[in-house]
Amino acid sequence: MKIQPVIMSGGAGTRLWPMSRASHPKQFLKLVTDRTMFQETALRVAPETDDKFAPPVVIAGAGHGALVANQLADLDIIANEIILEPSPRNTAAVAAVAGAWVEGQDKDALILLMPADHHIEDPEGFRNAVAIAAKAALDGHIVTFGIKAKHAHTGYGYIEAGDAISDGAYRVAAFKEKPDEETAKAYLKKGGFYWNAGIFLFRASDMLGELDAFAPDIRSAATNALKESKMSGAARRLDDDCFNACPSNSIDYAVMERTERAALVAPVDVGWTDIGSWSEVSSQSGSPSVIDFGAENIVRTDGFAVALAGVDGLIVVVTDDAVLVARKDNAQEVRAVVEELKKRGREDLL
Amino acid sequence: MKIQPVIMSGGAGTRLWPMSRASHPKQFLKLVTDRTMFQETALRVAPETDDKFAPPVVIAGAGHGALVANQLADLDIIANEIILEPSPRNTAAVAAVAGAWVEGQDKDALILLMPADHHIEDPEGFRNAVAIAAKAALDGHIVTFGIKAKHAHTGYGYIEAGDAISDGAYRVAAFKEKPDEETAKAYLKKGGFYWNAGIFLFRASDMLGELDAFAPDIRSAATNALKESKMSGAARRLDDDCFNACPSNSIDYAVMERTERAALVAPVDVGWTDIGSWSEVSSQSGSPSVIDFGAENIVRTDGFAVALAGVDGLIVVVTDDAVLVARKDNAQEVRAVVEELKKRGREDLL
Repeated sequence: MKIQPVIMSGGAGTRLWPMSRASHPKQFLKLVTDRTMFQETALRVAPETDDKFAPPVVIAGAGHGALVANQLADLDIIANEIILEPSPRNTAAVAAVAGAWVEGQDKDALILLMPADHHIEDPEGFRNAVAIAAKAALDGHIVTFGIKAKHAHTGYGYIEAGDAISDGAYRVAAFKEKPDEETAKAYLKKGGFYWNAGIFLFRASDMLGELDAFAPDIRSAATNALKESKMSGAARRLDDDCFNACPSNSIDYAVMERTERAALVAPVDVGWTDIGSWSEVSSQSGSPSVIDFGAENIVRTDGFAVALAGVDGLIVVVTDDAVLVARKDNAQEVRAVVEELKKRGREDLL
Repeated sequence: MKIQPVIMSGGAGTRLWPMSRASHPKQFLKLVTDRTMFQETALRVAPETDDKFAPPVVIAGAGHGALVANQLADLDIIANEIILEPSPRNTAAVAAVAGAWVEGQDKDALILLMPADHHIEDPEGFRNAVAIAAKAALDGHIVTFGIKAKHAHTGYGYIEAGDAISDGAYRVAAFKEKPDEETAKAYLKKGGFYWNAGIFLFRASDMLGELDAFAPDIRSAATNALKESKMSGAARRLDDDCFNACPSNSIDYAVMERTERAALVAPVDVGWTDIGSWSEVSSQSGSPSVIDFGAENIVRTDGFAVALAGVDGLIVVVTDDAVLVARKDNAQEVRAVVEELKKRGREDLL
């Protein structure tokens, strides 16, 4: 049985402003490797890489159909479908659309639902974890992936493992919100707590069943939006009215924290990073265009020369129309910058 | 008798990189007001402003003749002469050239020798100080200006006042190098110490006489360079061989610390600032293109949007090809950036 990868590529990536823009969000940028994060995600589960995978389904923002098609074409990957969301409705809606789309083909097929903006250093290790998860999914579990926690990160949610189901797979004892530092340290000390990667593997029918039970509005809005969808170029656009009416919620809240089917594959130790803010991006401090006399700075530039003198722990990002200077330990504040630009009506910079 | 202003405009302004460039040094930039510092300097002593002044003589770098002419033309000022230095030879050489040039017209004329990169908030107060200095200069003194010290600045030299010569004018008791903070504080507490502005007023014949006595090599090289000079467009270019052979020294070292003629007009309280580094430049934090959530930052941009989030006490300067991020309390380190760019052969950025 093939696994159907569904790549969730609808994020705006505002915390990676000024490189990430509404027209070109972070997942479509080369921030970690010489491919974009979206491309790396697609390659990681491409049929050409591993024949247990079907060609991907990509669910992206309404303005990004061409971007998705072009970035896949660069890799000679032909998507099974590119589905465009008229507006962002969070991950439960995406899971529902994915389920409904696959159900139309084979209701018992497995779906691997993944964000487009994660970096994974060891893709083969990841595929091995997927193979373990597939066994649990075929037993009716909705499987999530627990990343081996490298340090007491306060920016990620945690999953606590319960009883073993099979080799490497566990029931979920609890989902934990982003903890404070003390709590995060306690998790690491105690053991059995893993970073919640937001990656899921499940049978279409199982996810749809749980959505029917716990989030029927989302299930029906998504199904209708797909039913009423229309082709727009190479992409399928979900029906605006149906999808805009869909409640916005995460899979974790809508399903995972309620279902009896939740399972966990852990520990997944594959060099996983959620590229959520500039503090997770590699610095170009050593590049010929950058002079960095300081320490622990993250510098990114589209080509302009950048010089840092006597400053440490900063994020400096330079594009051809905007410059960001922020503290690494406060990288989230970039969101506030984007809000301020909105207030000022600087749509040209968003 | 007219006073001949001579504007020293040969500086490179490397500490104001990346806006200050070899082809366009800081004195030709609008960094403090809506005119360039060079223009403000020329206006401050223009005959149109105060008829005791002759039209200016400008001594500038070899590549800056057109820049000087254009910036004066914008103000409808016609220079008495624009003199170009084939290479920088410090202020004693400039004083010698100024003396030799004026000597050709009237050896007893007064010269007001001024750097082009100082900001003075109260130009009328400055002209009043010049009037006091003129009396002392007509008595044979080489007069320097002692700026009222506002705080224990460690980036300026100090002048200690000696006995009174006349109302507001004193003999010089001592020139003091840039002090450490403790010493600077002691100067302020004791009183009678003033910031050395590097502005001078003297009779051409007196300066030439002291140069003959204390720096005859400089005097003869400068005089020969002027004698062998040739017109180049609207400017007079000093003879390369003669001027390149001139020793490089400051007026303070070559003349002022040795001559019996040194006098001091003080306190001069006219809102004087040497725009020597970015820490002295006004910030554009309030401009529409700048988002500054921090405190005490200096932001300058040629038009690009700049956002500062959670950072304080920084200098952020953005041009259309380069970005500088430095600490305000370490603004001098910009020089090291320029050195590094030279090492890397990035002449395009110098």
